[in-house]
Amino acid sequence: MQSRKSGLSFSQLPATQRRHRMKAVDIVSADELEMIHETSLKVLEEIGMDFIHEEAKKILAKKGAEVDRNSDRVRFPKELILEAISTVPEQFELVSRVPSRNRLIGKDCFVMAPVASAPNSHSRAGGRRDGNMEDFKNFLKLSQMANVADLTQGYPVEPVDVHASIRHLTCINDFIRMTDKPWQAYSLGRDRNLDAIEMCRIAHGVTAEDFDKQVRMTSVINTSSPLKLDNVMLEGIIQMSSRNQLIVLTPFTLSGAMAPVTLAGAAVQQNAEALAGIAFTQMVRAGAPVAYGAFTSNVDMKSGAPAFGTPEYMKTVMLGGQLCRRYKIPYRSSNVVAANTIDSQAAYEAVFSIWALMHSGVNLVKHTFGWMEGGLQASFEKFMLDLDLVQMALKFLEPLGFTEEDLAFDAIKEVDSSGHFLGTMHTQERYQTAFYSPILSDWRNFESWSEAGEPTTFDHAELAYQEMLNSYEEPEPLSQEADEELTTFVAKRIEEGGVATDF
Amino acid sequence: MQSRKSGLSFSQLPATQRRHRMKAVDIVSADELEMIHETSLKVLEEIGMDFIHEEAKKILAKKGAEVDRNSDRVRFPKELILEAISTVPEQFELVSRVPSRNRLIGKDCFVMAPVASAPNSHSRAGGRRDGNMEDFKNFLKLSQMANVADLTQGYPVEPVDVHASIRHLTCINDFIRMTDKPWQAYSLGRDRNLDAIEMCRIAHGVTAEDFDKQVRMTSVINTSSPLKLDNVMLEGIIQMSSRNQLIVLTPFTLSGAMAPVTLAGAAVQQNAEALAGIAFTQMVRAGAPVAYGAFTSNVDMKSGAPAFGTPEYMKTVMLGGQLCRRYKIPYRSSNVVAANTIDSQAAYEAVFSIWALMHSGVNLVKHTFGWMEGGLQASFEKFMLDLDLVQMALKFLEPLGFTEEDLAFDAIKEVDSSGHFLGTMHTQERYQTAFYSPILSDWRNFESWSEAGEPTTFDHAELAYQEMLNSYEEPEPLSQEADEELTTFVAKRIEEGGVATDF
Repeated sequence: MQSRKSGLSFSQLPATQRRHRMKAVDIVSADELEMIHETSLKVLEEIGMDFIHEEAKKILAKKGAEVDRNSDRVRFPKELILEAISTVPEQFELVSRVPSRNRLIGKDCFVMAPVASAPNSHSRAGGRRDGNMEDFKNFLKLSQMANVADLTQGYPVEPVDVHASIRHLTCINDFIRMTDKPWQAYSLGRDRNLDAIEMCRIAHGVTAEDFDKQVRMTSVINTSSPLKLDNVMLEGIIQMSSRNQLIVLTPFTLSGAMAPVTLAGAAVQQNAEALAGIAFTQMVRAGAPVAYGAFTSNVDMKSGAPAFGTPEYMKTVMLGGQLCRRYKIPYRSSNVVAANTIDSQAAYEAVFSIWALMHSGVNLVKHTFGWMEGGLQASFEKFMLDLDLVQMALKFLEPLGFTEEDLAFDAIKEVDSSGHFLGTMHTQERYQTAFYSPILSDWRNFESWSEAGEPTTFDHAELAYQEMLNSYEEPEPLSQEADEELTTFVAKRIEEGGVATDF
Repeated sequence: MQSRKSGLSFSQLPATQRRHRMKAVDIVSADELEMIHETSLKVLEEIGMDFIHEEAKKILAKKGAEVDRNSDRVRFPKELILEAISTVPEQFELVSRVPSRNRLIGKDCFVMAPVASAPNSHSRAGGRRDGNMEDFKNFLKLSQMANVADLTQGYPVEPVDVHASIRHLTCINDFIRMTDKPWQAYSLGRDRNLDAIEMCRIAHGVTAEDFDKQVRMTSVINTSSPLKLDNVMLEGIIQMSSRNQLIVLTPFTLSGAMAPVTLAGAAVQQNAEALAGIAFTQMVRAGAPVAYGAFTSNVDMKSGAPAFGTPEYMKTVMLGGQLCRRYKIPYRSSNVVAANTIDSQAAYEAVFSIWALMHSGVNLVKHTFGWMEGGLQASFEKFMLDLDLVQMALKFLEPLGFTEEDLAFDAIKEVDSSGHFLGTMHTQERYQTAFYSPILSDWRNFESWSEAGEPTTFDHAELAYQEMLNSYEEPEPLSQEADEELTTFVAKRIEEGGVATDF
C-alpha cells in the first residue's frame, strides 16, 4: 500500500524488506550454463589472472593457487575455486545504525541503491555541471527520503570541490548524519579503508571486536578487465573481508571492448574474473559476505561507446543471475542507461534494465535511481523517473488477491449487464488502494493536457524532485557519545591532512 | 540478423514467422487459475450473459444453452462451455494473397499488427488532426514497410473524410492493393461483412467454396461489458465463423468501470465473457479459428480515465496468457499507453506493455505500433518508437550462441590481461552483426549530442518515419483477373451507395 509523506503530493511504497515474488527466469539451458561455468574455470586454470598485490599473492599461494614467480599471474586449479566459493554465505543481513534499515541480501531478498560515482550532476534548471558538494548533499536527501532506496552505494556524484585527501571523511560523515541507511566505502587504499571502518564503528556504537560480528558496510571491487585485479582493489578486499564486511566483486566486461564480442564469451570472462575475486575473499576470511557483480553490456560498434539498457544488456543481466543461483551467491546488477536527457530513450533503456533485473533474481541493485549518460551523469529528474519505474515494477510483482471477495462474483451479479462498477460498494471500499498511483504519469485527456501547456515527464519529474527535496527530514541523530566521537575523529583526521594524494 | 532496405539509413529485423523462445511466465498458481476458471463458469451458469440476436439465441438454445424466453439472457451449463471450447484450434495458419506473408498463430507462434481504430492521427509537424484518408494511406505504407508488422488489424486511423457508407470498400481496397499482408474486416453489420469476404475472396483468387478452406481474414468482436454481446457483434461471429475466418473475441473489461475493481474479479468477468463468445463461435462452426482477446486494464480512480501500460495492465496481460495456455486457445493482447506525447511516459508505458506481452505467450498482438492516448491517437513517431522497442524485445528473446567460438576461450587467451578485444579477429569477424543496432537511440556522448542540438527520441522518430514513408515500395500486384474483378466489384458497390448508414 502506498502512503504519503507529510508535504508530498505523491505517495510512495513503504520502506521495507523487498522479496522476489516471482520465480527468476532462466535465460539459458542448464547445459549452456555449465558450458559457461566450465569454460570460465578453464580460463582460470589455464590462462589465469593477474593479482597485483604482494600480500594477496602470498595468501593465494598458501591456499594452493599457482603463483608465477616472475609475474603477477595466478592460476587456479578448478577444485580450489569450487572449494573457496563454497563458503560464501547465500544470504546475510546488512545492518545499519538504525535497526529499521537493516536488510537481508541474498536468496529471495533484495535491496536497491541510488546512482553512484557520476562525475557530473544535472538538473533541468541548473543544467550539467561538475559534481559538487551541494548536489552530493541533495542526492543524499533524496536517497534518505526515497522509501525504496534501502542503502547508498557510493557518492551519487563526485564532489570535486572537496579535496580528494579528505573527501572520504567529509562524505562518509554526511552519509552517517544525513541518512540512516547503510553506505559504502570506496576501496581507494588502506588508509581510506581504515578511516571508513572506524567511522562506521563509531556510528554503530560498537567496539572494534564487536564490529566484525555483523555486516555493516560495503565496498565495490572492480576487476581491471581483462583478467586483472589491481593493488588498490586487492587491498580493499583484504581490509573489508578480513573485517567481515561486504565486498561486491564486479568485473566491468564490456562485450567487444574489455571482453569478447560474443555474449557467451563475455559471460565466460565475467564469470572467471568474478569467481577468482570471490574465491580470494574467502581465502582472506572464509564466510565473509560477498556479492557477485555483473556489469556486462555491449558497445556501440560504430563508435566504441558503451551502450546500456540494450537487448544484450538484458541477456547478460539475466545470465548473471542464473549463474549466481547455480553458485548460491548473492547477485548484484544495475539499472543503467546511455541516454543524455529525460526522453523516451531514458525511459526505455531504464525499463529494459529493470525488466531484466526483476526476472534475474537480483539481490543488490546499484545505480537504481538517477543514473544517466552511461554513468557520467547523476540526474535529479531521472532519480524521480526511476523511483516511479521501480515502484511500478514492484507493484507488478506483488501477488494478486484471491479471496472470495477479490473474485467478485457477488459484485458481478449485482452490476449484471446494465450497470457500472464505479458506484458499487465493492469498488468504493477499494478504489483508493486498488491501483498503483504513479508519481509522474500524466493521465489527463489530450485537451486538458494541452491546456496545461503540454507538460512532458521531464516537467513532472522536475517538480517531483524539488518537492521531495523540500520534504527532507533528518534521520534519528547519533547518540551524543557517537556524535562527539565522530566529530573528534573527523576533525583530527582532516587536521592531519587526510590521506596522501598523488596530485 | 538485421538488414537495410534500400534507401533506409537504419536496419530492420527480417520479416519472418515469430516464435516465443522463452517459456511463458505463470503469474498466478495453478490453484488460483482454477479459481478464476471456476468462478467465471459460475458466472455463466448462474448469472448468464445477454446475447442480443435472434438467430444467435436459436443456435445457443439448440446447442443446449438456457435461453430466457422473455429477455436476451442466456445461461450456460458448465459442461456446455467446456465442450464447445474443446474444438477451438490451438494453432492455425493465417494466409495472405502473397504466400510469404502467411503466418502461424497459436502455440509458440505469434504475429503483430499496428495501431487500429484511432479517431485522430498525429505527427510532430502536422499536430493532432481528425483521422483522414491521407494519414490512413501513410500508415498503410509504414505497415507494409515494417518487417515485424505481420498483418493489419483495422484502420490505423479512421478516415472520416470518406463517407461511412462506402468507407469499408475504399479502405479494404487499399489494404489489398497497398499491402500484401492479411487484414481485418470490422464487424459492422451483415452487408459490410459480406462485402469484405467477397473482396478477400477476389484478392485471393479463389472460389466461394475454396474460400472457407483457409483462414484468410480476421475480425475483432468486443463484448459490451459487462455481460453483453450485441447484435452487430453476434452477426459478425455468424458471418465470419461460418466461413472459417478468424474471430478475435475481446471483452473490454476496465477494472473499476465495466468490471470489478479487483484484478481477480476483472479477470473472472473477462474470462466469462470471452469463453461465452468463443463457445458461440464453435456452435456456429466447430473448429472455426478464434483467439481469446484480453483488454483488461485499470482506470485512474481520480478521474475515471482508462490507464494503460500500468502494473495492473501487466498483470492482466500475463494472467490472460496463462488462462489461454490452460484452454489451449490462441491469445490476443495489445501494446497500449495512455501518454499524450512521445516522452518518457510513452516509452515506459509501452515497454511495460511489451514486457508483459513477451512473457505472456501472446499469439496476436494488436496496436503494436503507433498507439497513443489510450487509443484516441495514431502517431507516426510512436510507430517508429514501438518498432524499435519491439525489435529490442525480440532481440532480447533470441537465444545466445553457444558454439565453441561463442564461448571465446581462444579469444580470451589471445587478448590476455593487457589487451583489448576490438582489434582481434574474433571481434572483427562479428562486430557488424553482434549487437542490435537501434533505430532511435542516441549513443553519442553528451558533448557531441549537445552540439547536434540536443535531439530527443521524438526528433529521431520524426526523421525515421519520414524516411520509411519515403522508402515505400508497392507490393506484388494482384493478378490481372483479380485486379479487374476487384475494381468492378468496388465500383459497383460504391455506385449502389455502399451500405445504409444511420446518419
